[in-house]
Amino acid sequence: METPWVHCILLSPVQVANNLMDMDQDPCKRLCFADGRRKVDYVLVYHYRKRSSVRGSPSQHRLSVISNGSYPLGVEGKDPEGGKDEPAEVVVDVGPPIPADGEKIMIREEFEGNLKDAGLEIERDKENKAHGHAFIRLHAPWQVLSREAEFLKIKVPTKKVRHSRDLFDCQNNLGNLWKSHRYFWPFCRYNINSKDTFFDNATRSRILLHDEWARYGAFYKYQPVDLIRKYFGEKIGLYFAWLGVYTQLLIPASVVGIIVFFYGWATVETNIPSQEMCDEDQNFTMCPLCDRACDYWHLSTACGTARASHLFDNPATVFFAIFMSLWAVMFLEYWKRRQISLNYSWDLTGMEEEEVRSHTNTRKKKNKNNKNETGHEKLTWRDRLPGYLINISSILFMFGVTCSAVFSVIIYRITISALMAMSPDPEVKSNVRVTVTATAVIINLVVILILDEIYGMVAAWLTELEIPKTETDFEERLILKAFLLKFMNAYAPIFYVAFFKGRFAGHPGEYVYVFNDYRMEECAPGGCLIELCIQLSIIMLGKQLIQNNIFEIGIPKLKKLCRTLKDKERAPKEIVEQPGRRQQWHLDYDLEPFDGLTPEYMEMIIQFGFVSLFVASFPLAPLFALLNNVIEIRLDAKKFVTELRRPEAIRAKDIGIWYNILSGLGKFSVIINAFVISFTSDFIPRLVYQYMFSETGTMHGFINHTLSYFNVSNFKPGTVPSISSLGKDITFCRYKDYREPPWSSEPYQFSKQYWSILAARLGFVILFQNLVITMSMLVAWVIPDMPKNISEQLKKEKTLLVDVFLNEEKEKLQLIQSLFSRDLTQEQQEELNVSDQTSLPLHQTQPGPHPPTSSPAPRTRPRAASFSQFTRQMSMSPQSNITQHTAV
Amino acid sequence: METPWVHCILLSPVQVANNLMDMDQDPCKRLCFADGRRKVDYVLVYHYRKRSSVRGSPSQHRLSVISNGSYPLGVEGKDPEGGKDEPAEVVVDVGPPIPADGEKIMIREEFEGNLKDAGLEIERDKENKAHGHAFIRLHAPWQVLSREAEFLKIKVPTKKVRHSRDLFDCQNNLGNLWKSHRYFWPFCRYNINSKDTFFDNATRSRILLHDEWARYGAFYKYQPVDLIRKYFGEKIGLYFAWLGVYTQLLIPASVVGIIVFFYGWATVETNIPSQEMCDEDQNFTMCPLCDRACDYWHLSTACGTARASHLFDNPATVFFAIFMSLWAVMFLEYWKRRQISLNYSWDLTGMEEEEVRSHTNTRKKKNKNNKNETGHEKLTWRDRLPGYLINISSILFMFGVTCSAVFSVIIYRITISALMAMSPDPEVKSNVRVTVTATAVIINLVVILILDEIYGMVAAWLTELEIPKTETDFEERLILKAFLLKFMNAYAPIFYVAFFKGRFAGHPGEYVYVFNDYRMEECAPGGCLIELCIQLSIIMLGKQLIQNNIFEIGIPKLKKLCRTLKDKERAPKEIVEQPGRRQQWHLDYDLEPFDGLTPEYMEMIIQFGFVSLFVASFPLAPLFALLNNVIEIRLDAKKFVTELRRPEAIRAKDIGIWYNILSGLGKFSVIINAFVISFTSDFIPRLVYQYMFSETGTMHGFINHTLSYFNVSNFKPGTVPSISSLGKDITFCRYKDYREPPWSSEPYQFSKQYWSILAARLGFVILFQNLVITMSMLVAWVIPDMPKNISEQLKKEKTLLVDVFLNEEKEKLQLIQSLFSRDLTQEQQEELNVSDQTSLPLHQTQPGPHPPTSSPAPRTRPRAASFSQFTRQMSMSPQSNITQHTAV
Repeated sequence: METPWVHCILLSPVQVANNLMDMDQDPCKRLCFADGRRKVDYVLVYHYRKRSSVRGSPSQHRLSVISNGSYPLGVEGKDPEGGKDEPAEVVVDVGPPIPADGEKIMIREEFEGNLKDAGLEIERDKENKAHGHAFIRLHAPWQVLSREAEFLKIKVPTKKVRHSRDLFDCQNNLGNLWKSHRYFWPFCRYNINSKDTFFDNATRSRILLHDEWARYGAFYKYQPVDLIRKYFGEKIGLYFAWLGVYTQLLIPASVVGIIVFFYGWATVETNIPSQEMCDEDQNFTMCPLCDRACDYWHLSTACGTARASHLFDNPATVFFAIFMSLWAVMFLEYWKRRQISLNYSWDLTGMEEEEVRSHTNTRKKKNKNNKNETGHEKLTWRDRLPGYLINISSILFMFGVTCSAVFSVIIYRITISALMAMSPDPEVKSNVRVTVTATAVIINLVVILILDEIYGMVAAWLTELEIPKTETDFEERLILKAFLLKFMNAYAPIFYVAFFKGRFAGHPGEYVYVFNDYRMEECAPGGCLIELCIQLSIIMLGKQLIQNNIFEIGIPKLKKLCRTLKDKERAPKEIVEQPGRRQQWHLDYDLEPFDGLTPEYMEMIIQFGFVSLFVASFPLAPLFALLNNVIEIRLDAKKFVTELRRPEAIRAKDIGIWYNILSGLGKFSVIINAFVISFTSDFIPRLVYQYMFSETGTMHGFINHTLSYFNVSNFKPGTVPSISSLGKDITFCRYKDYREPPWSSEPYQFSKQYWSILAARLGFVILFQNLVITMSMLVAWVIPDMPKNISEQLKKEKTLLVDVFLNEEKEKLQLIQSLFSRDLTQEQQEELNVSDQTSLPLHQTQPGPHPPTSSPAPRTRPRAASFSQFTRQMSMSPQSNITQHTAV
Repeated sequence: METPWVHCILLSPVQVANNLMDMDQDPCKRLCFADGRRKVDYVLVYHYRKRSSVRGSPSQHRLSVISNGSYPLGVEGKDPEGGKDEPAEVVVDVGPPIPADGEKIMIREEFEGNLKDAGLEIERDKENKAHGHAFIRLHAPWQVLSREAEFLKIKVPTKKVRHSRDLFDCQNNLGNLWKSHRYFWPFCRYNINSKDTFFDNATRSRILLHDEWARYGAFYKYQPVDLIRKYFGEKIGLYFAWLGVYTQLLIPASVVGIIVFFYGWATVETNIPSQEMCDEDQNFTMCPLCDRACDYWHLSTACGTARASHLFDNPATVFFAIFMSLWAVMFLEYWKRRQISLNYSWDLTGMEEEEVRSHTNTRKKKNKNNKNETGHEKLTWRDRLPGYLINISSILFMFGVTCSAVFSVIIYRITISALMAMSPDPEVKSNVRVTVTATAVIINLVVILILDEIYGMVAAWLTELEIPKTETDFEERLILKAFLLKFMNAYAPIFYVAFFKGRFAGHPGEYVYVFNDYRMEECAPGGCLIELCIQLSIIMLGKQLIQNNIFEIGIPKLKKLCRTLKDKERAPKEIVEQPGRRQQWHLDYDLEPFDGLTPEYMEMIIQFGFVSLFVASFPLAPLFALLNNVIEIRLDAKKFVTELRRPEAIRAKDIGIWYNILSGLGKFSVIINAFVISFTSDFIPRLVYQYMFSETGTMHGFINHTLSYFNVSNFKPGTVPSISSLGKDITFCRYKDYREPPWSSEPYQFSKQYWSILAARLGFVILFQNLVITMSMLVAWVIPDMPKNISEQLKKEKTLLVDVFLNEEKEKLQLIQSLFSRDLTQEQQEELNVSDQTSLPLHQTQPGPHPPTSSPAPRTRPRAASFSQFTRQMSMSPQSNITQHTAV
């Protein structure tokens, strides 16, 4: 409703190809104007109702008044946006919820008039139905295309040229084009040299793309990135190129991860700590894990988790964490190179990002109270302050929500396990841990998925409150906020398990209670790492599977079904009436609109977090990511090619703020992995035991060393196990911690071992972090940003350019010299016949779009000018002209 | 001797101005050719001997043979460098140590011929002396200057254009110009619009620079950076701009440093630990500091150092360390902005760094055995390997040298203090510490200064072994190596004091001995921080004072004196003969040649290290640096303006690798400061005591807590104090460490306090490092690289540029349309009178160097071409021509 058009559609040839596959092969049958010759390049759609009868074209004078913003109806005082070039925004902001159809029609007709002025040709359907969608089809004739193409070849796109792009963000920006008499076409995308090759590319794309790319069967093949770029534009091309590089680099990471996992698997039998834990002879009697209901237990019963834990918690993991940190750096460096290569081969090297003023008011149409902020006068700090304050407080609130969600799940786990432990049924008791863990993780996952959607909307709302100045700015802020919220949401439970679970549980005799009744939970006897690993794998896999299947396939299909049903309900007769007239644009209009790449990137970045952040605890993460991505690429491909309306091609030089987020994640992963290795895993305690406390220098006795003593007489009243099979002759039970024994002068205080291990852990963090940072810097320094062949190519091109200039200068001089000498001798002669040959050098190096006519080139003839002055003027190179103009 | 010229001199107008100050004001009196009109732009100098009589000009044919490299004498096989354009290198490589004068003369004459071909005018002295210096003066006439200026305006300097710069590295590269028929002038530096303003700049510089800049009295003023740049070129301009920014930013750092220092000074009276140390009632009896010769002592005798230590070791230092880390980041960000501003105002935004092939062979002329490597065929890995190996091993060796120098000073300190302590003279004994510390630091300083010079030479030698491909590469590698070596040299003793001193001394009863006899040294009772502070301040001040005064002023003066004496000795008569003929070039030739900016930068970067790296231990470092720099700027200014030959102007966009080094130092400083605060200062132990061990929650009892007990009966035989005034009734003495008391189960082992404090220290390092890194990233992110006004300016210029193109296109079209319509009607007419006005739009926007003649502009006349084709050709913008050529 923002513009008089409901939608604008870029026809998608692949769709067409699909539909035509079994029909005749002439694509013009459905893709052309009624004359069968002129191709449909763009389609505009609007809703109409027959009863509106303002169709008589109003005077042009009246219209121009409207577009200057002084139309009385519904326009609130200020000219909201854009100044002279974009007065159409006024109409967009029109107050009443349902603007009169008459106005819309007038606006539409003025717009159409402008399009016609710009040389475009228009075809419209007859409005023979009572109401429905009307499609206006545009054809850009060759003259328009070539004019705009030439114009766009001035490789300095600034605001003056930006309309070419605005058009394709048409949902929001169409209004801008109102009075702009130039109508730009994204000609830049097509590397045309002659009239014939223009549609060749699209034709090629339409046939190749579907076969090469959007099939699951092609998963092992490289993506046809160049085709994707030609068909969808650079921005989407870059996304798929990035996804390709990421997936490709996941292969070595997966291989190393599998090796690390198998190393753990192979050494589990020879691992002394897990042997000792499983050794029933050692028979450590452990303190009960809950009050009254739980009994004492033998450590050997936790043998299974101890062995499983070794799979992920072995020295190879440390190596793997370092490897993955360097891998992340390498990935970023490699992507930088690839991006530069693509920029080069897609001819983007000279392109500069331009900033498009954000059309917040179209987004903000519902916040009428903020209207004064949407003016295009400069907003002061005071205007922005409330927005920022709401932003900060909302984000803090969302942080709070996430944390309380995590805490609720903890409470759920604590209460349910306490209740189940108290149950008299022995079968319930034995399944406590499994049931509780499984249900808790599923609840976690559901909460994450729901909050994810909510946070996406909250981020968009908050960014609108900030009123960013430009489109880029808007997008970046939105992404940053959405990322922060979604990242926190996805990782909060994992952070809890990695760094907090079990650390505030207290020790026997002095347990920590929540709500006075429930003890804080502890990690399983195998250690927190195995729990982290489970949590991580379930959230990662669950998120990917559910988001891939339900959100990316299911919901769009459902939406489409709904819409189709709705449309059928509304106008069942008309469709039946004209079955043969269902044109391609009708079919395309039925597709889902394109929402931008943000969700796609976001999904991948969150996955990158799983792969890099906690990789020390789950070496198989890269493998799962790889498997997901192989499917993801084809899924996205299928979606882009067949499920969505063809997105507008947007040029982009890089992946924007996503690179910064990736790089930030990479840096963050270093410290997180350092902490996981030193605090969550038992790597450091084992090392310290072996080199500081072990009498034999081996790991024998490690388990005994990690267990502290508790005197059962120190149990508080009411917490002693009520029914106990082991409790008869026990005076001391053991628990996992480094505390002084009951017989020391400071019973149950942290022991010297605790502090020395803590120091070692912290020392390891410093060492690991600084080592990895240094190595990363080295890697980034060693890999040059620009591939050597590209930099050589660029150099060569520059040399060539200078050569061309030198030659041209020389030829000009020669030419002028010869002309001048003739001029001197033939001064009196009335007609000077300059031969075609002499003027040729000026043009012979231009292979531009000359029509192959054989008429002679225009002639130049100097006359009565002093030679030296003439020389100077002619030898001014075109480039130096530019500099001169700039300095004006 | 590399080129036939001994030297080339850019005349320095300031020198001239100085010399003329008291004479008449016409600068042309001494700066012009004999005709008094043509200005001397450049001077070439060579030695000659009268007896050489090959002066008769040899045939041109013969010369061209020489310059193609096939001259038989002394040319070793391969064409060493550069290919077709630079065959002159052959001559440079001529084998025999003293090439025949005849050859030199021939080469010189060919070169002069080339200069003349390029349009330069030459004036030479008559060789009327037996031997001596001959000066060839060059004048670049207006035509040459404007031609080259126009050429250089093609803002794409690549290899073809690089000669303009080569010339100014003339000592090494003069040979390159040999056959290059174009002679380039650094016209780019001058923002000329008309013939008259060209020398205006130089004139302005010559008068203003000396007054505004090179006086000590002007220390409080901004530097005239634009003038400096105009006179010395961008590279030197950037150095002084950088130095200015650095010095300016040192002001806030100094102020905060002084505040921190005064905070310490103000709180020393209320500081409980230093009160306790000075409290004679507490009367801790300390263990003797050396074997046998030393007695027990009371801690209160160390009261002075404890109070001094508090000046530098107080909570404000932690704040200051964080502040300085952020300061370093801010400095770099601010410099980035300033650099971009300068780039913009100096019109360097479009400039790209180009690479000049390194002329290692001129530098390597003495390594005859390496000659095969100097060829310009690509060097393989195998060729380079020996160089790299020598490099690595040499650098490791130098590291070893530095470490052993530090170790020698330690040994010196240990032995001297042991010897002095054993001396029977009580006065000697009482002065032990002062004498030893003072002499040791002075030795350290001298060693540093000597090694500094050696390392500079070693770095140059090592870089030559590497055979870098380009000049930039050479410079970068040299700088990196020199920095590494000099940095290590300057900081090794400081690192020792900060992190190692006293940590390997053992504890009473189990001291660590070196050479079986001498105990490892410990820090003074006040703590290591005060020693670090002393070491740092002496090395910093000493290095700056000595390098400033002796190396930068004394040695050049001495050298100049030597040369003058030598010259006088050699030719005392000739000078007496022609006292009036001592032209400006003679005076300029007497000055020191310019060695490049590396020493200047190096000095400042090492100083930056003092300011940032250990700032936690010495908050006054920024103040000292500031004072030094205020002097340094004027000293350098004076040196550049009056003491050195005018350096060749070199364009540069940035300060190159120095920025990376600065940024690396900034990052390194974070971790160093973290360690200094947590390990060298007592900040963490105090904190831990207060919150973990103190019973009252205050600092009372802290000193007692830091001292461990030692049972004097555990002294090893022969180490008990021989003469003791206190030792009679002592059973326990105290020492500073956290160890178990003699009565515990593990006597003299590290206590639980030790481990908990260690953990706290390490935890602090992690916290500090990550906090500061995060804050730095935030600061770097918040400060945009490009100042807003510049980015707006750039945008405006681009818009303007597009406008100009659009207008021009439009005008062209109109013009052609009108021409075409006339053509149609007047096809039969023989002469077409196009009015001047119609062709004007093509040129009217060019305010370039048109001579103010009023002759009409050349006319264009299309003829018999189809209109549409013509339109297309004419509407091709100049820029699109370029793209087309590039694509060829």
